[in-house]
Amino acid sequence: MQELSSRSNPTIQAAKSLQTAKGREAMGAFLLDGEHMVSEALAICPDKIRQLFVTADKAEQFASLLAKAEGSEIFSVPQHVLEAISQVKTPQGIAAVCELPPDRAIEEMGDKLLLLENVQDPGNVGTIMRTLDAAGFDGVIMTRGCADPYSPKVLRATMGSIFRVQITRCEAALSAMEQLHASGYDTVATALGGEPFYERTALAGRICVLIGNEGAGLSSRVISAAKRSYSLPMRGGAESLNAGIAAAVVMYDLMNR
Amino acid sequence: MQELSSRSNPTIQAAKSLQTAKGREAMGAFLLDGEHMVSEALAICPDKIRQLFVTADKAEQFASLLAKAEGSEIFSVPQHVLEAISQVKTPQGIAAVCELPPDRAIEEMGDKLLLLENVQDPGNVGTIMRTLDAAGFDGVIMTRGCADPYSPKVLRATMGSIFRVQITRCEAALSAMEQLHASGYDTVATALGGEPFYERTALAGRICVLIGNEGAGLSSRVISAAKRSYSLPMRGGAESLNAGIAAAVVMYDLMNR
Repeated sequence: MQELSSRSNPTIQAAKSLQTAKGREAMGAFLLDGEHMVSEALAICPDKIRQLFVTADKAEQFASLLAKAEGSEIFSVPQHVLEAISQVKTPQGIAAVCELPPDRAIEEMGDKLLLLENVQDPGNVGTIMRTLDAAGFDGVIMTRGCADPYSPKVLRATMGSIFRVQITRCEAALSAMEQLHASGYDTVATALGGEPFYERTALAGRICVLIGNEGAGLSSRVISAAKRSYSLPMRGGAESLNAGIAAAVVMYDLMNR
Repeated sequence: MQELSSRSNPTIQAAKSLQTAKGREAMGAFLLDGEHMVSEALAICPDKIRQLFVTADKAEQFASLLAKAEGSEIFSVPQHVLEAISQVKTPQGIAAVCELPPDRAIEEMGDKLLLLENVQDPGNVGTIMRTLDAAGFDGVIMTRGCADPYSPKVLRATMGSIFRVQITRCEAALSAMEQLHASGYDTVATALGGEPFYERTALAGRICVLIGNEGAGLSSRVISAAKRSYSLPMRGGAESLNAGIAAAVVMYDLMNR
């Protein structure tokens, strides 16, 4: 274990640069904060961890974790240096630099996909990934207008599912839908005014559920281009559902009914 | 319309006191911020609006709204006074003081209820109310450990459903469950390790779904006391679902399958 005591050290500065999307892209990496995220990553993709930073007082507590990080550089740092790297106010004594996975080819992502069109709230995006993982869907396609899946708030809300979910990003929903249709996916829009979801005819095989922006919903061109369009019942006076809630209800029903 | 130009005016100070739970209890009222919340309240319960505050530059824009507030006092205030009352950084020019509804007797709330045990995140609590309204459930029972349903963050997340959902608060989940059982409700716990939810025998009549704290889930005594206990499938590696997501999947399935 190497000691690094200065915030101005280039290794520290490089890790700190991962706080921004630009920095993540330049480095091809993202930052994991705290024991839960680091241990999930070490369990699922240990070879993707480039560097680990741990405070001296926590080195013993995290010894078994650090033992799993065979191929990674491990640095002992003072608390103020970890605070400079970290994206939370009170870091938990451990952080790691993890390689960004390459975007997947859509047709290799699996049979059950979700496409998010400009879902902007980081908490929503992270929760959707966690739910997708739990429901047994395979992956998510995200337009560039979505919250960055490797930003700190999204990562926290995924509760570790970020490492188990296939992710790819696309410029716009329509071009992704062309690829989906060419690869035999049924695209399923969720939109007010669609057919009643619970009266649908069976859906099997390759499916991609389309979820729209929190305020605007799916764009009308996306709804028109979708093979199917469904709405969930709104029995009370609520005008719509939260994007993450709609995605959850649809994914769980498609997987279990 | 009366003009009030000073923050130290007692009417303004009283409205400002609604920012805290203590102030809301003392006044028996809560604050509605912005056009959407105020217009929902005026549509559903106009007689509960005690006072309206509008900035002079927005009085014309909101004229048709103000016309619906027949029984309420209406005050024209400068922007800095509205900012003092309001709980958001940039208020939208209108706010209202609305009477707190009395807590309902559990057996009068309807046939489909939700009981939240210490759900603490205001966004979660608000989203759960919005979903409950959309799914067609009738009301929510909340332990004192839950986020206050009349706090600004919860109100915003309900998107107006606060006015359509029956709410009652209880000291602890177990005492509420005794009342529920005495009134013929089937209590349905959602818990890891429960029976498979999608293989359940039919549930009809009076039902109360139990949802636990974000981190800890339902307490073990609540799970033991529940008539039924179900778990949702976890197919990927996710360990649990967000509380609001679990509530949504269960409510929509119970209402539509």
